[in-house]
Amino acid sequence: MTKQQLHIIKIGGNVIDNSENLHHFLKDFTGLDGYKILVHGGGKVATQLQEELGIETKMVDGRRITDIETLRVVTMVYGGLINKNIVAQLQHYGSNAIGLTGADGNFIRTKKRPVKTIDYGFVGDIDDKSIDPESIGKLLDAGFTPVFCAITHNGEGQLLNTNADTIASALAVALSKLYETTLIYCFEKKGVLHDINDEESVIREIDPAKYEELKQKQIIHSGMLPKLDNAFTAINCGVKAVVIGKSDDLGQLKSKQPFGTTLSGKLKAES
Amino acid sequence: MTKQQLHIIKIGGNVIDNSENLHHFLKDFTGLDGYKILVHGGGKVATQLQEELGIETKMVDGRRITDIETLRVVTMVYGGLINKNIVAQLQHYGSNAIGLTGADGNFIRTKKRPVKTIDYGFVGDIDDKSIDPESIGKLLDAGFTPVFCAITHNGEGQLLNTNADTIASALAVALSKLYETTLIYCFEKKGVLHDINDEESVIREIDPAKYEELKQKQIIHSGMLPKLDNAFTAINCGVKAVVIGKSDDLGQLKSKQPFGTTLSGKLKAES
Repeated sequence: MTKQQLHIIKIGGNVIDNSENLHHFLKDFTGLDGYKILVHGGGKVATQLQEELGIETKMVDGRRITDIETLRVVTMVYGGLINKNIVAQLQHYGSNAIGLTGADGNFIRTKKRPVKTIDYGFVGDIDDKSIDPESIGKLLDAGFTPVFCAITHNGEGQLLNTNADTIASALAVALSKLYETTLIYCFEKKGVLHDINDEESVIREIDPAKYEELKQKQIIHSGMLPKLDNAFTAINCGVKAVVIGKSDDLGQLKSKQPFGTTLSGKLKAES
Repeated sequence: MTKQQLHIIKIGGNVIDNSENLHHFLKDFTGLDGYKILVHGGGKVATQLQEELGIETKMVDGRRITDIETLRVVTMVYGGLINKNIVAQLQHYGSNAIGLTGADGNFIRTKKRPVKTIDYGFVGDIDDKSIDPESIGKLLDAGFTPVFCAITHNGEGQLLNTNADTIASALAVALSKLYETTLIYCFEKKGVLHDINDEESVIREIDPAKYEELKQKQIIHSGMLPKLDNAFTAINCGVKAVVIGKSDDLGQLKSKQPFGTTLSGKLKAES
């Protein structure tokens, strides 16, 4: 029996912070066939609210330190303001969206990051036991479209801030046991570019051999390496393909036109 | 075939604003058998956040005027902070809770209140088409415990602030088509009291005849009249019973001890 198709799409600040981009994206998202899950980060709204409340935003190596006040803010902004407005818009466009944290339905249970040199505060790390695909499958099979924000819980009553990219990837890996899963990261470029200065130079397909070649030729920009490494890790764990593209272009998926860069194929060590 | 039992329980500020009361209640809620739905208001937290943000709280006749800034605050506080912390605690105690607004799953669709003499702003009114019991039934049948906050939507992308008592009552009426539904309002007293100064003088059972008698003898306090009228209206629309009691005592339901005041029986005009 062929597995049901599932698209998991992650959007970040460049979509959320721009109302026009967001509405355009949500319409295209609604138009996609098959099962769908949306994962969203927080964008600048949490930082803005922290400023309004006089709470200092502490970042270490680009990561937000989540003290108890910051956790309160992200719970309000990610779990309330952004998530519920996205859900209301999706309902308007015709998606039967249901807005979630990882605490809801016990869908994503994480462990508070241990304090080593840096105390990240109330940050939750995902492991391979964090997600029970069957429980999320119940929602999908009942016709709902889950919309996850970047908050999880530890199962002992504590909410935890968790990276949205990681949530999207972990959901894709877990759900690929039940569905033929494609993971889509929307970012600011049209895809992985041959020439960083030419937005039209999108590399349409990358398999492990091509990836090696692009790395050797130093065509892939250093900041892209961890993204692509993580993508191939997800593919090695069962995800059918990972697509990296621009949210504006998502509608092209529906019309079978090329969209972004598609990564697929297991690494050699696995084959 | 006998219908599955469903308890719908509404809590307000006197439970939410006191962490000890809240945890005690959530433990007892988890202990109740059968299908369950929790509905919560917002307590003082929204007003506190408005003060922190320098937003004026406007009340008319005890009702909050919901301008766009206030809607932003209640979406964060009701839909995010309070709802998701309750969900995380319920998961900890063992309820498979899932936190919702009326926008999620299109569960509660309302109409923005028309402006007559007063503009209440982004406030949604429930009517008899607001709730599709089958869609909520899918969640209940899949083993989830819905936790609703006091926010709904109009189906056109707009979130709306909606009275939590009214949500609880409308859910009870709609779901009584599918389940044998008991609606429980937790408030600050142990029930409807014979003597307002004696907390132990709880009237255990009130049917329509008894209600008439209590009204004639002026035993029922004027503030209780709209609550009880609404309760009997819900019963006339199919709800099995409405119970009014103190959240601390909810555990007595489980142990089959008397809890609060139970209203049941249809009004004479209906029989």
